[in-house]
Amino acid sequence: MKVAIIMGSDSDYNVVEKGEKILKDFGIEVQVRVISAHRTPNRAMEFAKNAEENGFEVIIGAAGKAAHLPGVLASLTVLPVIGLPIKSSTMDGLDSLLSIVQMPKGIPVATVAINGAENAALLAIQILSVKYPELREKLKAFRELQEKEVIKKDEGFLNR
Amino acid sequence: MKVAIIMGSDSDYNVVEKGEKILKDFGIEVQVRVISAHRTPNRAMEFAKNAEENGFEVIIGAAGKAAHLPGVLASLTVLPVIGLPIKSSTMDGLDSLLSIVQMPKGIPVATVAINGAENAALLAIQILSVKYPELREKLKAFRELQEKEVIKKDEGFLNR
Amino acid sequence: MKVAIIMGSDSDYNVVEKGEKILKDFGIEVQVRVISAHRTPNRAMEFAKNAEENGFEVIIGAAGKAAHLPGVLASLTVLPVIGLPIKSSTMDGLDSLLSIVQMPKGIPVATVAINGAENAALLAIQILSVKYPELREKLKAFRELQEKEVIKKDEGFLNR
Amino acid sequence: MKVAIIMGSDSDYNVVEKGEKILKDFGIEVQVRVISAHRTPNRAMEFAKNAEENGFEVIIGAAGKAAHLPGVLASLTVLPVIGLPIKSSTMDGLDSLLSIVQMPKGIPVATVAINGAENAALLAIQILSVKYPELREKLKAFRELQEKEVIKKDEGFLNR
Amino acid sequence: MKVAIIMGSDSDYNVVEKGEKILKDFGIEVQVRVISAHRTPNRAMEFAKNAEENGFEVIIGAAGKAAHLPGVLASLTVLPVIGLPIKSSTMDGLDSLLSIVQMPKGIPVATVAINGAENAALLAIQILSVKYPELREKLKAFRELQEKEVIKKDEGFLNR
Amino acid sequence: MKVAIIMGSDSDYNVVEKGEKILKDFGIEVQVRVISAHRTPNRAMEFAKNAEENGFEVIIGAAGKAAHLPGVLASLTVLPVIGLPIKSSTMDGLDSLLSIVQMPKGIPVATVAINGAENAALLAIQILSVKYPELREKLKAFRELQEKEVIKKDEGFLNR
Amino acid sequence: MKVAIIMGSDSDYNVVEKGEKILKDFGIEVQVRVISAHRTPNRAMEFAKNAEENGFEVIIGAAGKAAHLPGVLASLTVLPVIGLPIKSSTMDGLDSLLSIVQMPKGIPVATVAINGAENAALLAIQILSVKYPELREKLKAFRELQEKEVIKKDEGFLNR
Amino acid sequence: MKVAIIMGSDSDYNVVEKGEKILKDFGIEVQVRVISAHRTPNRAMEFAKNAEENGFEVIIGAAGKAAHLPGVLASLTVLPVIGLPIKSSTMDGLDSLLSIVQMPKGIPVATVAINGAENAALLAIQILSVKYPELREKLKAFRELQEKEVIKKDEGFLNR
Repeated sequence: MKVAIIMGSDSDYNVVEKGEKILKDFGIEVQVRVISAHRTPNRAMEFAKNAEENGFEVIIGAAGKAAHLPGVLASLTVLPVIGLPIKSSTMDGLDSLLSIVQMPKGIPVATVAINGAENAALLAIQILSVKYPELREKLKAFRELQEKEVIKKDEGFLNR
Repeated sequence: MKVAIIMGSDSDYNVVEKGEKILKDFGIEVQVRVISAHRTPNRAMEFAKNAEENGFEVIIGAAGKAAHLPGVLASLTVLPVIGLPIKSSTMDGLDSLLSIVQMPKGIPVATVAINGAENAALLAIQILSVKYPELREKLKAFRELQEKEVIKKDEGFLNR
Repeated sequence: MKVAIIMGSDSDYNVVEKGEKILKDFGIEVQVRVISAHRTPNRAMEFAKNAEENGFEVIIGAAGKAAHLPGVLASLTVLPVIGLPIKSSTMDGLDSLLSIVQMPKGIPVATVAINGAENAALLAIQILSVKYPELREKLKAFRELQEKEVIKKDEGFLNR
Repeated sequence: MKVAIIMGSDSDYNVVEKGEKILKDFGIEVQVRVISAHRTPNRAMEFAKNAEENGFEVIIGAAGKAAHLPGVLASLTVLPVIGLPIKSSTMDGLDSLLSIVQMPKGIPVATVAINGAENAALLAIQILSVKYPELREKLKAFRELQEKEVIKKDEGFLNR
Repeated sequence: MKVAIIMGSDSDYNVVEKGEKILKDFGIEVQVRVISAHRTPNRAMEFAKNAEENGFEVIIGAAGKAAHLPGVLASLTVLPVIGLPIKSSTMDGLDSLLSIVQMPKGIPVATVAINGAENAALLAIQILSVKYPELREKLKAFRELQEKEVIKKDEGFLNR
Repeated sequence: MKVAIIMGSDSDYNVVEKGEKILKDFGIEVQVRVISAHRTPNRAMEFAKNAEENGFEVIIGAAGKAAHLPGVLASLTVLPVIGLPIKSSTMDGLDSLLSIVQMPKGIPVATVAINGAENAALLAIQILSVKYPELREKLKAFRELQEKEVIKKDEGFLNR
Repeated sequence: MKVAIIMGSDSDYNVVEKGEKILKDFGIEVQVRVISAHRTPNRAMEFAKNAEENGFEVIIGAAGKAAHLPGVLASLTVLPVIGLPIKSSTMDGLDSLLSIVQMPKGIPVATVAINGAENAALLAIQILSVKYPELREKLKAFRELQEKEVIKKDEGFLNR
Repeated sequence: MKVAIIMGSDSDYNVVEKGEKILKDFGIEVQVRVISAHRTPNRAMEFAKNAEENGFEVIIGAAGKAAHLPGVLASLTVLPVIGLPIKSSTMDGLDSLLSIVQMPKGIPVATVAINGAENAALLAIQILSVKYPELREKLKAFRELQEKEVIKKDEGFLNR
């Protein structure tokens, strides 16, 4: 099980690392890279064209502003590509979100919330779990844990 | 290979059917249903809780306005859930999009473009293709065909 | 007289507590809880289904981002549900607002301003006052006090 | 049981009448009026100040553009005021929505979706049902009926 | 020559005082007041109805969020009313702007930029200058000075 | 009493003429012109620089998209300039509105609602009425008539 | 002098042809093509990489929704790339505009108005005119003609 | 080779200087000036009308809020004008962007991202490179360097 996280800029890593951690916690091999669709277009193409052959099963593309990276990757591979819009200094992330989610007919990108790195990782795991039943069990355990944490906080309020 | 398309309202079907057709063209069993997160909440829960057991591998949730359906389904299954925002009569689809894509940490929804039923279907197929290699080959053929159609139009303009 | 304030996350409490205080000042019993529509969906359903039986007369649901909580609660009870959109780190609260206010036909949520916890509480009291005349009198006293505070500030400026 | 529906303009009636019908179906006395906060301010004040005395228990204010009507009414009565934003010819209803829902601290307006007249009516009924148990039963019957209609459509798709 | 600046809240004064200063610099009598359209509606009406008689010739209404104050004042006087949208903690001032500028047919409000207190004052002076020729001359002198300040900065860059 | 209505394009006239009619009904001389800030910049400057000398007392500038016309006129005259944002084929008028209302410090434009030609005219009359008392009386009569029309419609509903 | 107009879809041609006409009127060779950044990525790369060698001096990229085409072309050539956002069926062109104009640091796209095909063409001519003085003269003649057309309409209104 | 950078306010310089530096690094003569379209309109006209004669080949106009400067300059010269929207304290730069990019038919402005001073400079260089082949080579070298920097960061992540 191998997932790639491609960031358009290394400044996206403070968001991205939260997703990287979750993937590793689930025992998934993760490769984090910095590839810009605009400044290193050849490298982006090369990565996407060879991703399947190189053993990747899901790709996460994280980018801000006119965020073309996930769409560019998606156009060159049939692997599922998850788009993670990064909030930058203007437009509150709306530019990143629309640039990623509004993909025209034919090439989808599975978009998650602005700065939603954890959900990008969990979505990757859910996609992998279609194939790997052990991940499905881990996901159910993760959900239970997550539920318990909320319940604990709820009980904290109930017992004030 | 079995995919569910759940619509929040039967009026969404004129958008949804374009995705249904693609899934069937790929030889995937599709179940289209009308389940409202708000008007039939118990039915929504029941569907989501049993979806895995009932053999579904991917779920597409289509809804408009305060579009909770995909998120509600996603909260009750670990199957990948694709969110398809439907444009309704006000706000140009922005309400549907934000209600679906901005899911809080812990429960992701794989969101596609507003009214992007074809891409919802293609994304479902890409997700399934992680497990089923024959779908990967079909996807590549689909992409080639799609490419050829654009090239044909391009040649039409080049030969004017 | 009993009102529930359900938050999607305990981080919403710094907003919510302003409303809790007002309700208590009016002599209303308040139960503050943390129940996530997405991370604890069963608990959300259970709460909503039993709210009437448990003596609640109005419910306030506070949530941010793709804020489904008030709508999910509203779908499972006929008690009036007030939606309080919480501003989170992106989109300036527009996502929370639209996710709550744009409820489709059949299941209304009474939405107040982004982060408007005080108004959520006052609205709950106004709703209760339809039944409890003593609250109506308290509301009138509150309004008078509120008016006097503004008048005092006005006089401060007039007497500069 | 008496509800007032105040429209800022008679052109809003094609939206408003859907709510009026629901209220009447529930056996509630409805008074529909045209009172503009801007063109007939004295009449607006007069109505709001006397609404309680005149036997109204809930007020619905419907208005478009810089929609001040619901807020103006709410400032002059402690009755619960429901705000119904009407979509007009520019800004897709966003101006109406923000003008109604973003009420400052102290005077809440219970806002429903843009053009959501049915939900404004249902919310009024839910508010009244806090006092009138018979309405609560009717609401439950309404919900069941509503649920059945969706289920019927769902079965239509299941049986294709 | 007398101008009123009415603020919806005393917290608006840190914006408003920049306009007050300009009006005073032009030798215009200014009355700054705190009157909330919602919390002190009677006081708002009273002020607006008597403004003409009390010698005011232009009114500036400053308010944030669902900013009804300028429109409410305008509905009760034929004096020109200038609307000054105040940016508050959510929605970046868009709610204030739309609530003020999108006034329906019949009652205009002369709207300036979000937080544009200086321009509200200058607009008031331009309106007064239609009647008072001496203000027109002062405005021309002000414009010249303003022009010179920019030219000086320009020359600073030219002479680097 | 003389008002100029300057349109950026003759296609704006179908909106503008509603304002022209009101001005004429109030007995005000109106000059309607087509002057583009971008396509006829010299003509725009010439008009604005000579407007005062040519007897104009208020200017209405109507423009769509990146609507610079009112601001450009305002920068070259101290006469009050009213900005009328015209809705064009994209962005629902938001571009026109922001381009007009968000004028930087020093040069105000009195902005009215998108396509609000009637209010632009009424605002011009209110500005003129500061100087001409007879207009103030006419405005009061206009308001009364306007009020009566709403009351008549209200009575129509009351007497159903 | 040779300009390429690349459309992401042949459905964009009804907008694009207005620009094509202007370029031809200026005596510039134009090649109009349909190349999708997503459906024909290899063709897009090939075109961009060889554009300079093939004698193109300016490229216009027209696309809608998540409009990556202009940015993708710009990343593979140092020729100036003009971005023409096409309005599609949702989001009123805002998605296209932000996807094109918000390019990250390093690779600019010269963006014009949504559906502004004429301006894309005129900008291309202005860019070419830096090198070709004869175009500068033609542009001045075009501007004069354009000015005269507005003046003629202005005179039509002046002579009513 | 000479480029002018005109700022609407000297406060824009902290953004603008990043572009100035790049232009100088490419060996291009740069003149940075402060000219306000609104506060120094005559100076703006004078500059634009003489820019060609004074040897400028490209103009960059930087402005915020209702940012008319680039459009005003463009209306008075046939030189290519690049618009650089500056983010100011409200509206997150959307007002600046729309005021610059949405130019009506006839007068284009080549718009770059909000606060995108580097891209404004690079676009100016790309435009100049149509005429000056040596700049084209420098641009290619710049791109290579830029690519290498991203690759270096990528390798940093690959070698963690």
